[in-house]
Amino acid sequence: MGSVSDVKGPESNPANPTSIAAEPRKPICVLGLGLIGGSLLRDLGRLNWPAYGWNRSEKTITRARRDGFDVSNDLEATLQRAEADGALLVLGVPMFALASLLDAIKVHAPTCGFTDVTSVKEQVHDLVEEHGLSHRFVGGHPMAGTANSGWPATMTGLFKGAVWVVTYDNAVAGDGMGNGADEAEDLWLKTWARVVAMAEAVGASVVPARARKHDRAVARVSHLPHILAEALAIAGDQGGPLALTLAASSFRDGTRVAGTEPALVRAMCENNRAALVTALDETLELLREAREELANPDKDMKDLTEVGHAARGRFEARAGRKKGEGANRPIIRVQPGGRGWVEQLESAESMGAQIGIF
Amino acid sequence: MGSVSDVKGPESNPANPTSIAAEPRKPICVLGLGLIGGSLLRDLGRLNWPAYGWNRSEKTITRARRDGFDVSNDLEATLQRAEADGALLVLGVPMFALASLLDAIKVHAPTCGFTDVTSVKEQVHDLVEEHGLSHRFVGGHPMAGTANSGWPATMTGLFKGAVWVVTYDNAVAGDGMGNGADEAEDLWLKTWARVVAMAEAVGASVVPARARKHDRAVARVSHLPHILAEALAIAGDQGGPLALTLAASSFRDGTRVAGTEPALVRAMCENNRAALVTALDETLELLREAREELANPDKDMKDLTEVGHAARGRFEARAGRKKGEGANRPIIRVQPGGRGWVEQLESAESMGAQIGIF
Repeated sequence: MGSVSDVKGPESNPANPTSIAAEPRKPICVLGLGLIGGSLLRDLGRLNWPAYGWNRSEKTITRARRDGFDVSNDLEATLQRAEADGALLVLGVPMFALASLLDAIKVHAPTCGFTDVTSVKEQVHDLVEEHGLSHRFVGGHPMAGTANSGWPATMTGLFKGAVWVVTYDNAVAGDGMGNGADEAEDLWLKTWARVVAMAEAVGASVVPARARKHDRAVARVSHLPHILAEALAIAGDQGGPLALTLAASSFRDGTRVAGTEPALVRAMCENNRAALVTALDETLELLREAREELANPDKDMKDLTEVGHAARGRFEARAGRKKGEGANRPIIRVQPGGRGWVEQLESAESMGAQIGIF
Repeated sequence: MGSVSDVKGPESNPANPTSIAAEPRKPICVLGLGLIGGSLLRDLGRLNWPAYGWNRSEKTITRARRDGFDVSNDLEATLQRAEADGALLVLGVPMFALASLLDAIKVHAPTCGFTDVTSVKEQVHDLVEEHGLSHRFVGGHPMAGTANSGWPATMTGLFKGAVWVVTYDNAVAGDGMGNGADEAEDLWLKTWARVVAMAEAVGASVVPARARKHDRAVARVSHLPHILAEALAIAGDQGGPLALTLAASSFRDGTRVAGTEPALVRAMCENNRAALVTALDETLELLREAREELANPDKDMKDLTEVGHAARGRFEARAGRKKGEGANRPIIRVQPGGRGWVEQLESAESMGAQIGIF
């Protein structure tokens, strides 16, 4: 069974002091203090990891300061501070606010490495490339959340046991010694290692995936479930009060995520249109077949029910049969910039493996 | 909030000693001792309600006897005993075994009232009518179950808080005095009242519905969720190991019932084809619209997400926001055979109300 307990952050790996990963805990600057960014700042605080934050709203700043955090609503000053102390930037703002934040980073933090926590990755990568910042960007997606949002919803421990996807689209091969060949490559490798170390420090399991592969996967397992839940909720409701009275646990579980705020569902789905259309087309085909089998008394649903049952079994084998059970994923150890390390990441991606840095 | 605590079985209603419902606890004979039938026998035993059972398999009989129950695998003898002591028969066998059981009832228990516990109702009503037994049949569907089956899965308390649908397709108007106009009508009314009293005694909430209305409702809220779960499980699995690793709680909840044995899913869906095709067609239309909205960058998913969210809200308002929370349904009191009682049942059906007998 996979365990994160033997995956250590850089500071606990003194046996390999020359590796990229073995840097001391450098500061982390969290930009945007919503559920994800704010919870990250809380976890870093708990770990005594040097960290500070920025948020646009004065109200959030007041609340976060009251809780003892080092935060500001002056973006320029915060970015200048991050540049001065070589902080890793974590972009915790919604998709629509990313472009203007990248503009500010380009001007006020011209050498900082940075990551994000947005739920889709290809659009973010494109935006970063348009800004000419790819050489210091590593995409991230912590797969954690609650139904609530904003600073009051933040908590410690939100990422414990969660998967944290880290992209490697911008990976450099390195010189096989665990270092980049030049200063720019070195910056990217160090940024990547710092993102991984941060995710592991807050208890997440790091899974490497390129932006496009990530977006295709979450379309199937995260965005599609929301679409189906909305449709099921509507179809049940169209049955009127008797149907709602007869609805029991299969309807309850099947519609649970239709309770998510519509704006959040739209933000996920509308930012991942192409991948979601592909997943939805496959689903429509399966449902059309089921419809024909039901409409024809000579046909049966053997295929759908048996293939579906086997698929659910494979999910349970990987994720644990019950919520909260430990996941059963392969673990691959990589050395950032080491010989063949990008190929190792590709292997991990195709296996859905989590990684550890050595 | 609806509560079953003020809904009493007939034996506790001495204020109305002449009503149909006020009979003493007559014996109950459970035919088929699977999860539902066996659990019912356990509950009746706990209540000291005179009850005995039959099952085809010797193994089940041995196990049930070891647990202290009065059971037999001699169908003819069991039915003759039921006929002699005026028992209510509860048919707990699967759909495919109903026809031969009805044949035996016709011969060996020619005057007993009977009910069933099958998950669809129209086919059962048709079968009973073909056998010429409608005048003593009341359909039933306790909406309770677990993933397991057979005597080892039986338990006390399975029906506590569950909805138990009772049909009234064969209802007679009565003479307005709470009695049938003749002996046949009297038998049907007494059977109906006994089924309701039994369901209430084991802690269920009785909801009246005609067979066709029942089947249409469960197609939407019980069978459709299974079809969508199978399709989602397959679409997720087609994303390969990376998708299964990234799958979190929305996928887990959305695919849970794909873990049900395929044969059970088929039995539900293939016995309710017409109603399920209607529900599936509505769902396909919603999903096709969603697909077009996603494929066109100028369109959005405002409608689907807002209507879906509101529908889930209506379900939560009725069923309770969390599993196990008390349901919030209207309660209507009826007197079997009383003036206008069939119209009262129709009202209850259209409101998804539960009923109590007075």
